[in-house]
Amino acid sequence: MEWISKSNILIVGLGLMGGSYAKALKRLGYHVTALARRQETIDYALANRIIDEGATGTDADLISRADAVIFALYPHVFTEWIRENQQFLKPGALLTDVTGVKRCIVYDIQSMLRPDVEFIASHPMAGREVYGVENSDDRIFREANYIVTPTAKNTPEAIEWCRSLGQILGFRKVSILTPEEHDEMIGFLSQLTHCIAVALMTCSDNRHLVDYTGDSFRDLTRIARINDAMWSELFLLNRDDLLRQMDLFIGEFRELRDLLASEDEEGLREKMRLSTERRAYFDL
Amino acid sequence: MEWISKSNILIVGLGLMGGSYAKALKRLGYHVTALARRQETIDYALANRIIDEGATGTDADLISRADAVIFALYPHVFTEWIRENQQFLKPGALLTDVTGVKRCIVYDIQSMLRPDVEFIASHPMAGREVYGVENSDDRIFREANYIVTPTAKNTPEAIEWCRSLGQILGFRKVSILTPEEHDEMIGFLSQLTHCIAVALMTCSDNRHLVDYTGDSFRDLTRIARINDAMWSELFLLNRDDLLRQMDLFIGEFRELRDLLASEDEEGLREKMRLSTERRAYFDL
Repeated sequence: MEWISKSNILIVGLGLMGGSYAKALKRLGYHVTALARRQETIDYALANRIIDEGATGTDADLISRADAVIFALYPHVFTEWIRENQQFLKPGALLTDVTGVKRCIVYDIQSMLRPDVEFIASHPMAGREVYGVENSDDRIFREANYIVTPTAKNTPEAIEWCRSLGQILGFRKVSILTPEEHDEMIGFLSQLTHCIAVALMTCSDNRHLVDYTGDSFRDLTRIARINDAMWSELFLLNRDDLLRQMDLFIGEFRELRDLLASEDEEGLREKMRLSTERRAYFDL
Repeated sequence: MEWISKSNILIVGLGLMGGSYAKALKRLGYHVTALARRQETIDYALANRIIDEGATGTDADLISRADAVIFALYPHVFTEWIRENQQFLKPGALLTDVTGVKRCIVYDIQSMLRPDVEFIASHPMAGREVYGVENSDDRIFREANYIVTPTAKNTPEAIEWCRSLGQILGFRKVSILTPEEHDEMIGFLSQLTHCIAVALMTCSDNRHLVDYTGDSFRDLTRIARINDAMWSELFLLNRDDLLRQMDLFIGEFRELRDLLASEDEEGLREKMRLSTERRAYFDL
């Protein structure tokens, strides 16, 4: 497996996701290094044997020794990082990321990148409602999907390496989608659902109802605890797709509302039957 | 405890909820009888020792022996049943129900009821996505809320009896609300969330995305498998409250959409921070 040869792996950004990657890879025997913003993050990761080496800011030596680099950063920081530090990359290095949007990232990075290194984008669809390397946990990969989003510029070898990465990290399922397919999927399954949860929490002050909440409400709003810096950036980067999904949802929700307003019981039941039929498909 | 004296309990309607009540009460030593539509339901319940006696249709003898009657029927069937069968009720009998809407039921029933029996309304906020006595399970009460919704017509004794019923059934929390407070609460916490889940499933055919769904999406749409006969009836019976909640939600969701459309990052982040702050309150 090609993957085996990429044995020195640099993780840039050591938060929840970067830390979880580090834990999984170190356990598998890879030499894991990391760059983080704060020294205490590196100290914690070293003390807890999550990484083998680490530094803050730019460390040309660490970068130049990496066979593979995984970017676990906010999208805008990630692009800047490449611009400023790609000079230090080892020729032949493979680069991947964890970013939740793809179109706006992949083409830009690939077009600015040195020709002797390769960026193959991927998205681990895993997460928690907590942050930081202290909360990192590679068990979050077990039930999650890992999506590789190659473009025409990617080599079969890099695509295969990235697939293998998803597999060894322990993801339940590894898939390949175009950046466009990925962003449409994520707009619906993840971003639209987060918008719904947020709007449900903010549409009225319902804190007096806290005593009466059941599982349905808690399940529906669990994702309403949201990292505003990260998610606003992801929403804006996928703005066109997400707006389209939001408009479809508003239109449908309004239809349901109008069926209720006009006391159209059969119309309501038809919507519910369609919903039940479709949802059953998601339980197969 | 007044409750103790009501030892012969008739359950009218032996589905998931009626069956779960029967199991809990029989285990506690009450004499549990039931009326169901179908003979096979009664046969199953007798064979599995869920009830002590049962019959289909009207059984004047069974009704006349009951100290307490619990209605686990659809709202419209429930009102009809009272009209047709209240003549058989034992003087002094206490009546309660499991209906998910209150204003439209409670006052009508109380005004048509014989003066020597008393109806004290309640709502066990428990359920499953499956139906029928075969799936009944009184463990669903453990994490759930039980709401008693008295009116000015109710006696303190009946209210206390109904509270005790919720307690012995094993509910996590027993509360008292007016029918109006109840319907507002249920409009927001339960009906609005079901509308959202249904609209999310029906707004576009996203079955090709089934491979990529994560926990968030599954949690959010679990309740999109919905009993169309029951829920459409509940929605229509709480139409004014639910429409108000739906309009609040549409307005808020549209605000979020417009913030995204105008690329107002700070506005988006503010909504997310409010959402996070409120949701945290629900985790206390």
